[in-house]
Amino acid sequence: MAVRVPKGYLVSGVHCGLKRDLRKPDLTLIVSEANAAGAGVYTQNLVCAAPVQLDRQRTPSDRIRVVVVNSGNANACTGERGLEDAREMARLAARAARVEEDQVLVMSTGVIGAYLPMDKIAHGIELAAARLGNDEEALILAARGMMTTDTVYKLAGRTISLTRREVQITGMVKGAAMMGPNLATMLGVVFTDAALDSQTAQRILREVVDDTFNCINVDGHMSTNDTVLLLANGASGGPPLSGGLLDEFTRELHELCGELARMIPADGEGATHLVIIEVEGCRSRDDALKIARSIANSPLVKAAVHGADPNWGRIISAAGYAGVAFDPACVELYINGHLLYRGGAPVDFDDAEVSASIRAEKDTHVKLIFSEGNASGRFWTTDLTPEYVRLNADYRT
Amino acid sequence: MAVRVPKGYLVSGVHCGLKRDLRKPDLTLIVSEANAAGAGVYTQNLVCAAPVQLDRQRTPSDRIRVVVVNSGNANACTGERGLEDAREMARLAARAARVEEDQVLVMSTGVIGAYLPMDKIAHGIELAAARLGNDEEALILAARGMMTTDTVYKLAGRTISLTRREVQITGMVKGAAMMGPNLATMLGVVFTDAALDSQTAQRILREVVDDTFNCINVDGHMSTNDTVLLLANGASGGPPLSGGLLDEFTRELHELCGELARMIPADGEGATHLVIIEVEGCRSRDDALKIARSIANSPLVKAAVHGADPNWGRIISAAGYAGVAFDPACVELYINGHLLYRGGAPVDFDDAEVSASIRAEKDTHVKLIFSEGNASGRFWTTDLTPEYVRLNADYRT
Repeated sequence: MAVRVPKGYLVSGVHCGLKRDLRKPDLTLIVSEANAAGAGVYTQNLVCAAPVQLDRQRTPSDRIRVVVVNSGNANACTGERGLEDAREMARLAARAARVEEDQVLVMSTGVIGAYLPMDKIAHGIELAAARLGNDEEALILAARGMMTTDTVYKLAGRTISLTRREVQITGMVKGAAMMGPNLATMLGVVFTDAALDSQTAQRILREVVDDTFNCINVDGHMSTNDTVLLLANGASGGPPLSGGLLDEFTRELHELCGELARMIPADGEGATHLVIIEVEGCRSRDDALKIARSIANSPLVKAAVHGADPNWGRIISAAGYAGVAFDPACVELYINGHLLYRGGAPVDFDDAEVSASIRAEKDTHVKLIFSEGNASGRFWTTDLTPEYVRLNADYRT
Repeated sequence: MAVRVPKGYLVSGVHCGLKRDLRKPDLTLIVSEANAAGAGVYTQNLVCAAPVQLDRQRTPSDRIRVVVVNSGNANACTGERGLEDAREMARLAARAARVEEDQVLVMSTGVIGAYLPMDKIAHGIELAAARLGNDEEALILAARGMMTTDTVYKLAGRTISLTRREVQITGMVKGAAMMGPNLATMLGVVFTDAALDSQTAQRILREVVDDTFNCINVDGHMSTNDTVLLLANGASGGPPLSGGLLDEFTRELHELCGELARMIPADGEGATHLVIIEVEGCRSRDDALKIARSIANSPLVKAAVHGADPNWGRIISAAGYAGVAFDPACVELYINGHLLYRGGAPVDFDDAEVSASIRAEKDTHVKLIFSEGNASGRFWTTDLTPEYVRLNADYRT
């Protein structure tokens, strides 16, 4: 099975009272038996949570040993006390795993503006340390410990052979809303038994995140807590990857992160559709992504998908205000393979047929082909449903 | 009464079959008996409708005589044929009013990507020309002729004295959704019997629109058809306004446009709240508006208002990704006068009390005070409701 705990790691997920439901894990521990290269990519929000501030100082690093995560409370907008709480959370995990405090990275997700209940956190870390394991059950509990409004846990993995060495890469993510441009609101940990030096780990994580987790959204609201961590402990043996082996590893990491990224809008709050927006024929990838993101951020486009309405006018007009120059008379627009617009004017299409195709499938494919160049980009988002609004009108109650 | 037809204008609104409901006017005519200075401000969307392309060429002008507006069809994304239809619409109106073709401005609003039914338009213009009047009834029918999903017609006016001359400024707008940053999706005509030269008219309209119609949104989706026109025919007598008189006129125009602008989110599709976002203590007005707009565009903030949830974390995090540098530890945040956040940390407030205050009033006041400078800005938006999504999931059906 490709989804398993890589060599040299132990994981657990436990319930410590941060969530009301006793059956739901709310604290996750990932421990590497040896020093791991640790890299991180974080929210660009100026208002960032305490754990983000802490981890930013600690990555990249050559000697990460522990990641501790809690759900139910974001430890965001909590000022100095919040930062002290994040540090204390790291200290508690360090003590439990018998490592140094600065070898621990922290992630939190949940409600903004409430202080962490440190007694529960302390108890949770103790419990989690006692239940560390490397089997599938431990891995699933760890993934569940990160969940907030997610309806499913999100795990993926790859086993690859690099010059007869078997390398495992496994990732877990959480996220279902407050998903913005530039790192959707999410937490993610990818951990591998490959050997990487920390600068390389940081560089490839940055590249891969830009192309995967930064190409999804649910509601365009950038969170205070977005974090993706990469740990590489080298337990599969050998020197740090470089050259062709590093390229191969990076390709697999890219694929894995793409798979994990898509799981998030697919589980978007209240969503009934995963919308895949492909933009081709642009001058640059950046242009293509700007257009795709502008479409993905339009509530009118998203509501139309929910209503199975092939409303291409909303799509083309959202492209028009993306801030990218293009000739509106040289654009083709397809929904689920049906041509709806070409040459600046509508084409004759069977509205009912396209509508039925949207209704029939969970995935809706939107494709725009411009005539400006050869660059392309892809973005994943959700539809917008009355259920999303209901969920977010009383998230805290 | 301050809302009346200014001197030297005749107006009408008729039904010509663009809307299904026979009781709903769908074509509006505004005729000036003498040449008027005509100015226009238009959508910044690259994909702009045919009438926008036409009016852009024709403004500013010293000799505008007619504005013809249809609802029910936006004549957008209709290519060359659409542009020819817009020109023909102007020609028909010119003939009916016995003026030159290039003295006519055209506005359209409604569904994107359908060709104008020119036989109906021709019939409508004939009808409208026959029913021109300057009484209140004619004015209301003209305002109703612009409506799409608006639930109320939107009219406002000012009578002012400029050196013993009485000057009338009257405006009508439409708009309830597809409201974006940079000119909400809307049509507006402001017409006055003051005398203005066309360059001055263009300059003051641009300034006033930036501060009024550009500071509202409903869903952040910038339309293909946004247009605000200003006509000044000088029928109140005297030379073109300048100096102190022009300043006074501009102040009144600003107030009038502010009043008209607020009517749009107040009538936002499915909205239950008008949200007024005030941002103070910024380095520049532009910074303040960027932050206000970022908050106004967040579906999470808007859903929270709908749920009467004083979720200040969503507000402060939306400020954090506005692209404006500020010290998160030096921000105060108020909802309806209640302090919810200060100094980077939550303050103790009565959740139930703030929630009740949101529920009790149609207007929700959000105020953020930064410590970066002395500039401020204000933005008006709506809450986000399940009803908005329902309306926009089947707009075309």
